[in-house]
Amino acid sequence: MAAKENTPKGMRDFLPSALATRERVIATVKRVFESYGYAPLETPTLERLEVLTGKYGEEADKLIFRILKRGEGAGAGEADLGLRYDLTVPLSRVVAAHRDLPMPFKRYQIQPVWRAEKPQKGRFREFVQCDVDVVGATSMLADAEIIAVTHETLKALDFPKYRISINNRKILSAFIDAAGVPAKLKYPAIRAIDKRDKIGRDGVTKELAKLDLPAAAVDRLIDILFERYSRGHFSEYIEAAGQTVADVEEGRAGIAEMEALHGYLNDFGVPAKYLSFDLHMARGLDYYTGPIFETTVPEAGIGSVTGGGRYDHLIMLLGGPDLPAVGTTIGLERIITILEERDGANGASGYAEVMVAVYDAEHVGAAAAVAAEIRAAGIRCEIYLDAKAKLAKQFSYADAKGIPLVVTVGPDEVAKNAAAVKDLATRKQAEVPRAKLLAHLKAALNHDKR
Amino acid sequence: MAAKENTPKGMRDFLPSALATRERVIATVKRVFESYGYAPLETPTLERLEVLTGKYGEEADKLIFRILKRGEGAGAGEADLGLRYDLTVPLSRVVAAHRDLPMPFKRYQIQPVWRAEKPQKGRFREFVQCDVDVVGATSMLADAEIIAVTHETLKALDFPKYRISINNRKILSAFIDAAGVPAKLKYPAIRAIDKRDKIGRDGVTKELAKLDLPAAAVDRLIDILFERYSRGHFSEYIEAAGQTVADVEEGRAGIAEMEALHGYLNDFGVPAKYLSFDLHMARGLDYYTGPIFETTVPEAGIGSVTGGGRYDHLIMLLGGPDLPAVGTTIGLERIITILEERDGANGASGYAEVMVAVYDAEHVGAAAAVAAEIRAAGIRCEIYLDAKAKLAKQFSYADAKGIPLVVTVGPDEVAKNAAAVKDLATRKQAEVPRAKLLAHLKAALNHDKR
Repeated sequence: MAAKENTPKGMRDFLPSALATRERVIATVKRVFESYGYAPLETPTLERLEVLTGKYGEEADKLIFRILKRGEGAGAGEADLGLRYDLTVPLSRVVAAHRDLPMPFKRYQIQPVWRAEKPQKGRFREFVQCDVDVVGATSMLADAEIIAVTHETLKALDFPKYRISINNRKILSAFIDAAGVPAKLKYPAIRAIDKRDKIGRDGVTKELAKLDLPAAAVDRLIDILFERYSRGHFSEYIEAAGQTVADVEEGRAGIAEMEALHGYLNDFGVPAKYLSFDLHMARGLDYYTGPIFETTVPEAGIGSVTGGGRYDHLIMLLGGPDLPAVGTTIGLERIITILEERDGANGASGYAEVMVAVYDAEHVGAAAAVAAEIRAAGIRCEIYLDAKAKLAKQFSYADAKGIPLVVTVGPDEVAKNAAAVKDLATRKQAEVPRAKLLAHLKAALNHDKR
Repeated sequence: MAAKENTPKGMRDFLPSALATRERVIATVKRVFESYGYAPLETPTLERLEVLTGKYGEEADKLIFRILKRGEGAGAGEADLGLRYDLTVPLSRVVAAHRDLPMPFKRYQIQPVWRAEKPQKGRFREFVQCDVDVVGATSMLADAEIIAVTHETLKALDFPKYRISINNRKILSAFIDAAGVPAKLKYPAIRAIDKRDKIGRDGVTKELAKLDLPAAAVDRLIDILFERYSRGHFSEYIEAAGQTVADVEEGRAGIAEMEALHGYLNDFGVPAKYLSFDLHMARGLDYYTGPIFETTVPEAGIGSVTGGGRYDHLIMLLGGPDLPAVGTTIGLERIITILEERDGANGASGYAEVMVAVYDAEHVGAAAAVAAEIRAAGIRCEIYLDAKAKLAKQFSYADAKGIPLVVTVGPDEVAKNAAAVKDLATRKQAEVPRAKLLAHLKAALNHDKR
């Protein structure tokens, strides 16, 4: 297709043919978010470097695209700005700057972020993130709503079979403690058991052993996660959690959160069959403080398509006020990949549904008039932009673009007050009276069924 | 409003309250463009520096935001990428890379661009451009369609009184030649007479004198533009052009283009009252080769809101194949400024139309159920995210966000199978049977009239 790749490494052009699924997914996501009262936020592509750096860890800081200072006074090679790395730091900055926002602040943000990672299949250096968060609410109602919104979004996208895994960082933390893991190894141990589904019992055992954990702690973790309980219904999860961590304050707090969350999920009508309560599910990042959740499509083998949780102090750590927060990222790029693999390329975005051919220079007015009439009926319609082109060339153009219908108004049709309509799929042409043209086109395009 | 400005200089956060007009304008522009068969193109935020530099002139090159090389091997302070400076260079790059695009290629692109200019009122360092172009068409039908699309777009936006000025670079060039301006002063002279409306006769005379033009040439230009013809109807324009440049080949070619263009504008049904044929209108940039056009709102005093023309060799100069092209930029930021000044802030984007209050923890299910029902009817509806909050606090939140209606379902309402609906504007509350709730809300929100 491309003569040569001439975009920067890991960054993509989106031609109309690549935008159809993309635009449909984004429009659906926006519609669902807004139906729940989440409002859009947009922030600049660039942030001051001091806002960006030191927030994501040393490794991540190396992946930030940095902007050279401009103007005369700039020291050689000095950078002062960077490209947005995620949507949470900008959210924290906005909440810090606008203290009079009505709380809870329910916002979504769908914008690209940039990371100078090694590009690989499905991983790009410029990709769109889609975050939906509630800032300023402590109630589990907010956590339940984020999960309900996730479910509604995937349902609205007619997404293939998916599983929303739910766990709680307080329970997980107490469970790791109870197994006898030293405090400084807590997060490494959490990251190891999070790999359960990917690397299995032997893999997790090896990972835990690598951490220099006491052998008894490794045994206890493996015993629970592979013999007693790992994933199941809420009642089993609560029973397993109760047996493991109910004697620790953090554990009891986590259990209370999960009971409230489960009740609210029921109130929101999220069907239990989509939910899985997973004691090993950890989410990679360290900053979660309560419920955590992610969505996987077991058949796609592509990792999680959504992921989030409660992060009650992160906004403060990122430079904002100390406000509780809960939210999720919807992995747009992965969702688009899965839908495109299932459905194939589904037409092109914005292409015309009807082309009006131009019979000759004398009939441009007739063609333009019929095109205007077709557009006014809500049908995308282009007129061929050369009055001297042979009709065969015009029809080839419509074929190349995949425009399904071509209307021609030549002298015969003008005389009869009609239009010739050709269906490029069947190659059949019909003469249609002008008064019936719009109805004919709408029926051929299935407009009434949309 | 803001505790402190913490965005980079000249770059803006858009809170929901700032996004309502913005999103409406962008959606309208997209709809009109697509109705004519223009399809969207999106390109990466970053371009390789060698693609960007040397294309816009030396001054512009200084305004490009440059990205430091990443990774170990990078020389200190070296840059290899830059932020998109306009949408024409990316278009040229895409056309060069994808030689199998159906021609003419009709695309629009609505994306931000970045220029490190001194910020001032209405001028930002990050702003959205909106270009619509036809690549690969020589017929004046394409130029006429671009003007028709411009007109349709402004009409669809219910834009205040505007004037589309049209001229032709071939006629302008021949006219400047005929006045006796030396070739090397042609573009400076064009830029001087383009200022006619802003700086008047004395201003233009001074600007021309500064160029060291022969006095006779200055006299001839001023005589034509201020005594004989400057702006008017097509017939007067063609008459003036004929008197001035019909004996030069370039002039005759320009006149022929304008006659074809005028005929096609008529075919497209663009009303003559919006059109002004302006012999002095030049557009700043040097690369136009045929018809040029711009839209001004004389009452707004804000410069042009759209501007474009035919640029038959620019794509080649920018590194693409030698394809003819015509298009326009729609000045989204200026259009939004004018509409917001006229209409005021018009609500917030995405905010809920209805809030369902939560009576107490026992009634979360009832509240969630009624909220789901309201959403399913296409009404944006949020539930208050704290079951323990007093109703007064919940109503204050709805007031602060400007949510017009609050629905409450407490024990009384459950018993009567009803809902309490409060209109926050009138402060009146009504008890509405559940079966009539959706109809009641739709009527109160004027949904049926939308």
